[in-house]
Amino acid sequence: MKETVIKELAAVQLNNPILIEGLPGLGIVGKIAIRYLIKQLKAEKFAYLYSPHFPYFVLVNKKGGIRLLRGTFYFWKNKNGKNDLILFTGDSQAQTIEGQYEISDRILNFAEQHKVSLIITIGGYRVEVKDKPKVIAASTSPELLNKALQAKAMLSPMGSPIVGTAGLILGLARLKKMDALCLLGETRGYLPDPKAAKSVLEVLKSILDLDVDLAGLDEEIAKAEKMVVRLQKIEEKRALQAEETRKEEDKKVTYIS
Amino acid sequence: MKETVIKELAAVQLNNPILIEGLPGLGIVGKIAIRYLIKQLKAEKFAYLYSPHFPYFVLVNKKGGIRLLRGTFYFWKNKNGKNDLILFTGDSQAQTIEGQYEISDRILNFAEQHKVSLIITIGGYRVEVKDKPKVIAASTSPELLNKALQAKAMLSPMGSPIVGTAGLILGLARLKKMDALCLLGETRGYLPDPKAAKSVLEVLKSILDLDVDLAGLDEEIAKAEKMVVRLQKIEEKRALQAEETRKEEDKKVTYIS
Amino acid sequence: MKETVIKELAAVQLNNPILIEGLPGLGIVGKIAIRYLIKQLKAEKFAYLYSPHFPYFVLVNKKGGIRLLRGTFYFWKNKNGKNDLILFTGDSQAQTIEGQYEISDRILNFAEQHKVSLIITIGGYRVEVKDKPKVIAASTSPELLNKALQAKAMLSPMGSPIVGTAGLILGLARLKKMDALCLLGETRGYLPDPKAAKSVLEVLKSILDLDVDLAGLDEEIAKAEKMVVRLQKIEEKRALQAEETRKEEDKKVTYIS
Amino acid sequence: MKETVIKELAAVQLNNPILIEGLPGLGIVGKIAIRYLIKQLKAEKFAYLYSPHFPYFVLVNKKGGIRLLRGTFYFWKNKNGKNDLILFTGDSQAQTIEGQYEISDRILNFAEQHKVSLIITIGGYRVEVKDKPKVIAASTSPELLNKALQAKAMLSPMGSPIVGTAGLILGLARLKKMDALCLLGETRGYLPDPKAAKSVLEVLKSILDLDVDLAGLDEEIAKAEKMVVRLQKIEEKRALQAEETRKEEDKKVTYIS
Repeated sequence: MKETVIKELAAVQLNNPILIEGLPGLGIVGKIAIRYLIKQLKAEKFAYLYSPHFPYFVLVNKKGGIRLLRGTFYFWKNKNGKNDLILFTGDSQAQTIEGQYEISDRILNFAEQHKVSLIITIGGYRVEVKDKPKVIAASTSPELLNKALQAKAMLSPMGSPIVGTAGLILGLARLKKMDALCLLGETRGYLPDPKAAKSVLEVLKSILDLDVDLAGLDEEIAKAEKMVVRLQKIEEKRALQAEETRKEEDKKVTYIS
Repeated sequence: MKETVIKELAAVQLNNPILIEGLPGLGIVGKIAIRYLIKQLKAEKFAYLYSPHFPYFVLVNKKGGIRLLRGTFYFWKNKNGKNDLILFTGDSQAQTIEGQYEISDRILNFAEQHKVSLIITIGGYRVEVKDKPKVIAASTSPELLNKALQAKAMLSPMGSPIVGTAGLILGLARLKKMDALCLLGETRGYLPDPKAAKSVLEVLKSILDLDVDLAGLDEEIAKAEKMVVRLQKIEEKRALQAEETRKEEDKKVTYIS
Repeated sequence: MKETVIKELAAVQLNNPILIEGLPGLGIVGKIAIRYLIKQLKAEKFAYLYSPHFPYFVLVNKKGGIRLLRGTFYFWKNKNGKNDLILFTGDSQAQTIEGQYEISDRILNFAEQHKVSLIITIGGYRVEVKDKPKVIAASTSPELLNKALQAKAMLSPMGSPIVGTAGLILGLARLKKMDALCLLGETRGYLPDPKAAKSVLEVLKSILDLDVDLAGLDEEIAKAEKMVVRLQKIEEKRALQAEETRKEEDKKVTYIS
Repeated sequence: MKETVIKELAAVQLNNPILIEGLPGLGIVGKIAIRYLIKQLKAEKFAYLYSPHFPYFVLVNKKGGIRLLRGTFYFWKNKNGKNDLILFTGDSQAQTIEGQYEISDRILNFAEQHKVSLIITIGGYRVEVKDKPKVIAASTSPELLNKALQAKAMLSPMGSPIVGTAGLILGLARLKKMDALCLLGETRGYLPDPKAAKSVLEVLKSILDLDVDLAGLDEEIAKAEKMVVRLQKIEEKRALQAEETRKEEDKKVTYIS
């Protein structure tokens, strides 16, 4: 394997499909969102993406089976006659600069082959989130962007970079005159953030007029919040202990002088 | 995108053109100079350079649009019948060694296609600048270098390296028997330095007999100098506080002994 | 040499061969195991693998001769009419991500050319080993895995990564629909660990019904254990000295106050 | 320039030539030796080697001219009817692993084109040198190695690596069945070491029966030794000051207690 390759598992005929991409990144927002959609829509696998720019290890599954790191394409037939969906997620982003460009390029080629009419990429946006995470949007097309804003997304601040596959796909799509939209959920970024993923999916639902129940994410959100609280307590305890130690040392110093 | 590519937006007929390059680098001298020329001459975009050796993120513009990092070629028709100009600047230098050589190579190929008769590269030269920044010159041709010296540039010290695209273009131009000149403005290098850019543009004006008003840079220079003064004050304050703290600690030690 | 190449020293006809791979890695388990097999079976060299992704130095041999870093393929004719063996080990793993994929790919191509029916890779598994090191197994095929479990290997924990050539060969083998099994000996990993290698070879003997005496490894194991004891003593002494120093300093402090 | 290239400046007919290589490395031994030979033999330039794996800067010469980093091939016609010489040195080693292999490969291809019968590489060998630096030899051929030993070189210790172009050329030469010898001068390695270069040239003179006066190196050696003495004095002074400071601080502590 000298280059990134896509292996199709089945020939699939799709109706005017929309491709939605979400690889691991800040808060794992993109991957959480895509995995939730796959589960809810019962989407089916139909292609793998392999790359020599992924990390050089393999993963072991429940039964002792083994596989390369990869990206996976799923499809979902929309029974209401609207756009079918292609959902893409995977284990990792590329580990080299050239690999980042190469993988984004391959995903777009695959989209072209399947006559994809619209590409949406999902990721996280690092910020000190207060209440409900907002969703930041950027696009290759003003019309698309407008749809996102109507769905309560906010304009991405000017000059801010969008790092990795979620960004490069848009940059390269523009060169190929393909329509693409990027939706980033606000997240502190250092822990899996299903709340940010839910915010993104709400915008996505509205834009695509998708019938998906998002309540299933609430359990994951509750777990993630417990985790945050637990980590905060550990942090506070550590701070308290550090304070105690400092006071003890201060006493000694006072005593000496 | 496996390699650096140049996409032309329009077919342009240029009269014996001179290509002037300035990518971001020390003191951002090259980019500041080229951007100023573009603005003053009202030069027009006519080609983009994309590369998988640029950093792997995209930029968002004012309206939520998105683009890959890139270099941009502008042209300017010289109404006095002398040489037309091609101006090149961009978002970033290449991030890999091979990318540095590849991008410089592509720029030269583009110059050859457009029958460019002379290439000038602009950058910064790190030094503790006292008064007016001097301009350092090096060239593939003694005649060209002489023109620069007559325009009050100084000879580059022997053995000193010129790093990045501004240097490699000259090295590769020599192999292709193309004439090229490098002008480096003296700069401390850690902040945008429009003063160094102005010095370079003065030399460039004189060499090319260009009619460009450089007064417009003075406002930028004033801003940059205020920034330097502000940073110096912060630095002085920090030094003072450190001194205070040291004295306090000295007292304690004295007291103990 | 732009790419990894395999140079065959002799044309060899093998009977339904099994390829066993073990490059240096954690505890050098794979290389120790393969080298022991080569010695015991008196296997013969028949091909070298060279790569521009190995480190850029050469090795000097006893007689002042010199050679590139390389991998070496050995063969062993099984007189009992069962599978012949191809044994592969070498000086180093690839130093780049792409090199890791490329070398694993070349080894599989070589295996295909020689009509290899089964590939077994050997390595180390980092863990705080108590008694006898266990052997962890993963495979591209449930039947193969079952054979390993019957030979007292244990299932690899789900989600754990297998890093480097021992893992990538399995990942890539699956794409080529080749059968492959990975056996990892538990090891602390920071010293050569012949005990872990012996555990792996015991499982391997049983799976392949190989007649190899493993007693020859006991001397190496004894040496390695002496080394561990020596390092532990050095460590304890250092800890004691640190304790002494601390007490001395405590005295001073008490005295001051 | 996507790959390493060699540009010949002149077509030269050479008589059974020997190629001697010395790039910068430990103690710059190889480059100092080759440059001295070039000067003494009045050898002439006839080819340049350029590579996108060299560092990405250019050098400015005395007159403000500019050039890429490169390697240079020189030739010398041996009037005594023996072997002509090709001498190779340059500005830098390759900066990437693949580049190291690629450049060594290109040099060997060039040697093959010029029907080179023997290749000798020169470098440094890091060791705490006492008196006269010894010369360490390794070779692709026992006969060649024997010649070096008769010329008072010593056998390279087994297992020791020879890093960079001086080593890789031998490793790759062996694959191409070309004869090659490596001579390494003992050096502490952190300063230019003409004394080590002289030792190597003495062995080389004897092996090739070359008539070159090495006395011209003595001036460089004297200079280098003055530099070492100066650095040692600076070091001693620094050590003394540190000692003083320590004593002062000890006094304080004693006073406290």
